[in-house]
Amino acid sequence: MTGVRFELLAEDGAARRGRLHTAHGTIETPAFMPVGTAATVKAMTPAMLRQTGAEIVLANTYHLMLRPGAERIARLGGLHRFMAWPGPILTDSGGYQVMSLAERRTLDEAGVTFASHLDGRRHQLTPERAVEIQDLLDATVTMVLDECTPYPIAPDAAAASMRRSMRWAERSRAAYRARAGYGLFGIVQGSVFPELRAESAEALVAVGFDGYAIGGLAVGEPQALMFAVLEATVSTLPADRPRYLMGVGKPEDLAGAVARGVDLFDCVLPTRSGRTAQAWTRFGPLNLRNARHADDPRPLDPDCACPVCAAHARAYLHHLVKAGEILGAMLLTWHNLCYYQALMAGFRAAIERGALAAFAARLERERAGGDLAPWSGQGLRARSGLTRPPD
Amino acid sequence: MTGVRFELLAEDGAARRGRLHTAHGTIETPAFMPVGTAATVKAMTPAMLRQTGAEIVLANTYHLMLRPGAERIARLGGLHRFMAWPGPILTDSGGYQVMSLAERRTLDEAGVTFASHLDGRRHQLTPERAVEIQDLLDATVTMVLDECTPYPIAPDAAAASMRRSMRWAERSRAAYRARAGYGLFGIVQGSVFPELRAESAEALVAVGFDGYAIGGLAVGEPQALMFAVLEATVSTLPADRPRYLMGVGKPEDLAGAVARGVDLFDCVLPTRSGRTAQAWTRFGPLNLRNARHADDPRPLDPDCACPVCAAHARAYLHHLVKAGEILGAMLLTWHNLCYYQALMAGFRAAIERGALAAFAARLERERAGGDLAPWSGQGLRARSGLTRPPD
Repeated sequence: MTGVRFELLAEDGAARRGRLHTAHGTIETPAFMPVGTAATVKAMTPAMLRQTGAEIVLANTYHLMLRPGAERIARLGGLHRFMAWPGPILTDSGGYQVMSLAERRTLDEAGVTFASHLDGRRHQLTPERAVEIQDLLDATVTMVLDECTPYPIAPDAAAASMRRSMRWAERSRAAYRARAGYGLFGIVQGSVFPELRAESAEALVAVGFDGYAIGGLAVGEPQALMFAVLEATVSTLPADRPRYLMGVGKPEDLAGAVARGVDLFDCVLPTRSGRTAQAWTRFGPLNLRNARHADDPRPLDPDCACPVCAAHARAYLHHLVKAGEILGAMLLTWHNLCYYQALMAGFRAAIERGALAAFAARLERERAGGDLAPWSGQGLRARSGLTRPPD
Repeated sequence: MTGVRFELLAEDGAARRGRLHTAHGTIETPAFMPVGTAATVKAMTPAMLRQTGAEIVLANTYHLMLRPGAERIARLGGLHRFMAWPGPILTDSGGYQVMSLAERRTLDEAGVTFASHLDGRRHQLTPERAVEIQDLLDATVTMVLDECTPYPIAPDAAAASMRRSMRWAERSRAAYRARAGYGLFGIVQGSVFPELRAESAEALVAVGFDGYAIGGLAVGEPQALMFAVLEATVSTLPADRPRYLMGVGKPEDLAGAVARGVDLFDCVLPTRSGRTAQAWTRFGPLNLRNARHADDPRPLDPDCACPVCAAHARAYLHHLVKAGEILGAMLLTWHNLCYYQALMAGFRAAIERGALAAFAARLERERAGGDLAPWSGQGLRARSGLTRPPD
């Protein structure tokens, strides 16, 4: 019986071009996983999502255990069927959301007890129960329960937390029911302390996992520190398993992490931005509420190949956002996810050519150049034709 | 120069199977127009909308003149380009929304002045300005400005209002710039009084319009009264022009009106319902918030051919609605519009076969039978397969 299988296709420095084979399909890496918190990538139909190029989505154990319930999803045939996403699904273990969303938390060696943010009811999440829930959901990739430490944190507190997370990882491994094409990932902790990260990675590798995640980063530390910790951590992980940097990030974070050998990412940024009037393009983030867009007939990015840029002007997106229309959230989310997937495809192609550094430098240049100059009105009629056909 | 052209293909009693030829495409009638208030059919992309079978959409002069402004839309190339809907668009004149949404209204012979519900700024809408706005929007079909009387209303008040609306219709006609494939529709008023309706229709026909709308119905009067007024009104309208019953309605209203010779409809019901957890099927309306759907693996209607019923269980829709997910509004709106378009296709096919009465009787029977029996859980595993593939 084999779990998910990682195939290394090419390398460019520390960067890797790979392929992750799973029971629900193959994922080209480096890959970005859109976040489908409550069994939906917000404001996207499964068909729109597939059209972005996404090959795997992430869902949240914490949210799904509370509503609609893991046992219910199992009775309904599992999460793939429930959310009509037949492709691979990775579920986080719920640890991070318990810490950020739940109320009246108590954490001890057994696990964590908490009150639901929805109805106040008490729940317990242990390493064993987290694995069981993800099994009920039929997750392609199950994550071990861990504690994501805040930043900054004292070294001894980080060490104690990390060591408990490692004991939890071992218990998760013991509780996990291995199946062909399904995988269990361990999560490296240890905050920003290289020796703790190394100890954590060693402990996980000794247990043996199908993939290794790097948790506890992108929690407020400077980017340079994140990259330094990442380098130290990645060098301690086996080359034949996928590496997943949790909760990251901005395009420039992705570029730096890909260059340091990370294969998988997830982040709410493109989807959450889409619901708050923010678009991501190679020019950086844009605020569509800004009046500068009100008369602009140009798409978000004239060179973007996504369905939103093919059909809709900035002026229209501005209007939708100002009017509070659902379609505004839909179109901006759609574009943002297309941008992220195109970015990942760009990383993959660059690694294959051995040209990742040049690709990253171009990204940096384009972002530094900022957005298109404000629309001057010049050439508007020429571009959009006469406002009326001749009589 | 000809306006929109109506082709009568078949009749079944008073019911008509027709085709409306316009500058932006052909509409098979009887047709239902989804409402795209603010240049978006709420929660639908243009591609999803097209997929429902919709051939024409309605947009609102009142909303668009206030935001983003008619002159702005004209500069951006017109409403078709603005909302990425190249097909036919009918715009209402704004009269109805001024009466239902605007503040501090004053109506006199010149027109109506009001304060915007968005920012309190004062605006004037005259018959001439309403036509000009719709011209700026590049509406395929322009509606004359009229006053939609409330129900009930005294006969003399109804007569005075209707006669002013008829003078406005004449001014609208004079202000209208005719173009090939574009049309101007008059609106019959007169509340529930057959002699006033006849007088109104006669006045409009004397002016001459590309189509005739029936306004001032579905404003609270009983269905039987609406049908009686409709019969009296339709009989006074020319057979070679399309007839449009404004703001109607429920499936059973559509059936009755189609049988009485109406060709065009619009209503917010399928879209508004979709945003308030209500689904329309041949079984009648369903409330997806109801706990009876929580474990139901069946689609809204097992016989529905729409993309929502093909992919999603009631249990999932229930979950989305309970979780306040945007996708819930998207999927229910999508299904509802598919249901409405399938209903219209059913009317059209039945008229062609001379079998409208039998078709309407079947609709009535199915609706009377009510929703599917609650899900018993029987056959769930058989239907949805094992919750897990064998190891």
